[in-house]
Amino acid sequence: MLRTQRSSLKWTRFPADVLPMFVAEMDFAVASEVRDALVERVRLSDTGYLDGPGPLAPAFAEFAADRWGWEIDHRFIHLATDVATGVVESLRAARPGGGRLAIPTPTYPGFFEMLQELPFETAQIPLRAEPDGLGAHGFGLDLDAIEAEFERGIDAFILCNPHNPHGVAFTREELTRLARLAAAHDVFVVSDEIHAPLLHRGAEFVPFAPIAAEAGAIAAIATSASKGWNLAGAKCSVLVAADERANRVLAGLPPEAVTRTSILGLHAGVAAFRDGRDWLDRAVAQIEANVELFGSLAAERLPGVTLIRPRAGYLAWLDLREAGLGEHPARELRVKARLALNNGSSFGAGGAGHARINLACAPDTIVRAVDRIASLQNGTRGGNA
Amino acid sequence: MLRTQRSSLKWTRFPADVLPMFVAEMDFAVASEVRDALVERVRLSDTGYLDGPGPLAPAFAEFAADRWGWEIDHRFIHLATDVATGVVESLRAARPGGGRLAIPTPTYPGFFEMLQELPFETAQIPLRAEPDGLGAHGFGLDLDAIEAEFERGIDAFILCNPHNPHGVAFTREELTRLARLAAAHDVFVVSDEIHAPLLHRGAEFVPFAPIAAEAGAIAAIATSASKGWNLAGAKCSVLVAADERANRVLAGLPPEAVTRTSILGLHAGVAAFRDGRDWLDRAVAQIEANVELFGSLAAERLPGVTLIRPRAGYLAWLDLREAGLGEHPARELRVKARLALNNGSSFGAGGAGHARINLACAPDTIVRAVDRIASLQNGTRGGNA
Repeated sequence: MLRTQRSSLKWTRFPADVLPMFVAEMDFAVASEVRDALVERVRLSDTGYLDGPGPLAPAFAEFAADRWGWEIDHRFIHLATDVATGVVESLRAARPGGGRLAIPTPTYPGFFEMLQELPFETAQIPLRAEPDGLGAHGFGLDLDAIEAEFERGIDAFILCNPHNPHGVAFTREELTRLARLAAAHDVFVVSDEIHAPLLHRGAEFVPFAPIAAEAGAIAAIATSASKGWNLAGAKCSVLVAADERANRVLAGLPPEAVTRTSILGLHAGVAAFRDGRDWLDRAVAQIEANVELFGSLAAERLPGVTLIRPRAGYLAWLDLREAGLGEHPARELRVKARLALNNGSSFGAGGAGHARINLACAPDTIVRAVDRIASLQNGTRGGNA
Repeated sequence: MLRTQRSSLKWTRFPADVLPMFVAEMDFAVASEVRDALVERVRLSDTGYLDGPGPLAPAFAEFAADRWGWEIDHRFIHLATDVATGVVESLRAARPGGGRLAIPTPTYPGFFEMLQELPFETAQIPLRAEPDGLGAHGFGLDLDAIEAEFERGIDAFILCNPHNPHGVAFTREELTRLARLAAAHDVFVVSDEIHAPLLHRGAEFVPFAPIAAEAGAIAAIATSASKGWNLAGAKCSVLVAADERANRVLAGLPPEAVTRTSILGLHAGVAAFRDGRDWLDRAVAQIEANVELFGSLAAERLPGVTLIRPRAGYLAWLDLREAGLGEHPARELRVKARLALNNGSSFGAGGAGHARINLACAPDTIVRAVDRIASLQNGTRGGNA
């Protein structure tokens, strides 16, 4: 298979007998429209510096309008190397002196790495599980806890919407209340919306920036084609504001932010947002089928393994506390069953006993993963499934 | 011509009738070995995250050994998005609190942009012009001034070697004295060596890191295939130490520095350093011919225009103080002669009345540039040459 010739983190971090279902890279082949765009730029020797978002601004804005009903002023679209860089640099621009930052958990471990670069004290606010209340699929923002934390003094907030690892797209009601709290307490919000293009059928995604603008809060969203079209290594993202006030914050990004963005990544992003929508829809359909497959196999064969079904993206959060895999289930699975998942403990408060699995793969890979988990639960040696 | 289909800064910043000879992008087609490597990675959908320098470490180390006699421990090679990012992040890692930073001028304007991101007070130390003393071609480090500044208290130093814009590769004697001063005064040195692969025939390049290690100074060098092979937009560079002490500083780079580097850029760099040497040598030969051509045409037709002949790279520093082009010659040339050079004033102390010209182009472009300068000097309207 082609993917075994790949040189990326997913295929090089662990020995070849470990089934890699951890880092957020898809096994799918990149969309032909995106590959063609990259090859064309290489053929033209168009490998110099970027001078701005250029054609990416209309391509992203049209995608946002068509898919989410968000009309974006092109002047409010800025470049950054990737979403992580965008999060870090927008926080530096908005709150150069740092302060206190709040973040809902469990969440993407990369945020804790980013926070090592910034002078913030961090307050972790666990998501609330409330099947019949606010929030999709039983997980939502704990807005009472957020309000209480804001009252103690918070300068910045990292939102991840749709949320990684639960795959929850927060509701308009939740986001509106968050925006009003941010406005009332002068909290800058950066919203990582990288998983939004991978919204599952029937789910709704609400971009945070326009909600913030309406509420009078200052916010930026960071997103990219990198997750939806598997271009993490192509290095291009956008930071987007929804009003002049937030845009003035982004005007304070480093002068070199633009040139630190890849021209190849930019053209890949243009092709993705503009021409790669059918590919995206097929990828989402495959992901949804994979979620169903894993869910039904787990219900049948993996006692105590609870899948939190995502409504966006291809990452799924597994509650393994009742699975009989010990205190560190991801480590057990990797060492003894040769299955690499992300360790839940690295996702912050509430993550212990959990793991994150990557379901952007062939269905056969899902079956092999289930076999390996089952063999460990059954006390037989895994790794040969 | 293919280059007019390019979308990079060089071709989009100014209107089409302006001849662009400013930003450091080559007009040459990218080496076929590099293009093939990029196309292969795109074909494999190998567009995920990097997990380290991988094959770039041996490729760069072999190039450094073969070309400069520098044997590098692969453990001392680290990734960064680009050289500018490497400079900023290594300064953050070495001197998190900032302090006072010294930099020889006139120099690459990007350094002043980078310094906006860092909490340093900056001391500019003009190069010395001393035709028969230290330093190639009459320009060298003013080591007495550097010593005096270090004695006043300096925490960090940005070296640019070979120096942009003069194209001077500093001598072993100069670098050794700098290293000893840095060791004596505990000054961290980051050396931007991006132009080193483009060393002209007969010139010598001395990497700073091993000199620093020998003198007991802590230094890192930042370099890339991006300048030599025209891959500025591919976003991959290396930060390299020459001993354990300097390497410990680089161990403090942001945990996400690696994933912010492009996997496409990395493979382009591997192909360049390993397989692109013949292409590089041909590019250098063309650049040297272009320098000669510009120099002879200028001597003949452009009174008062003095070319500082570079010994590395394709950028040349022009002294226009006697050229009758006013206080702001680059602006005059762009507005009235439709020729875009870099404005010398943006290069810091000593830059006024100068301009930087990019000579990585077809010889015909050199002739057109000379025509445009001559027409402005002769009082006829330029722009149609």
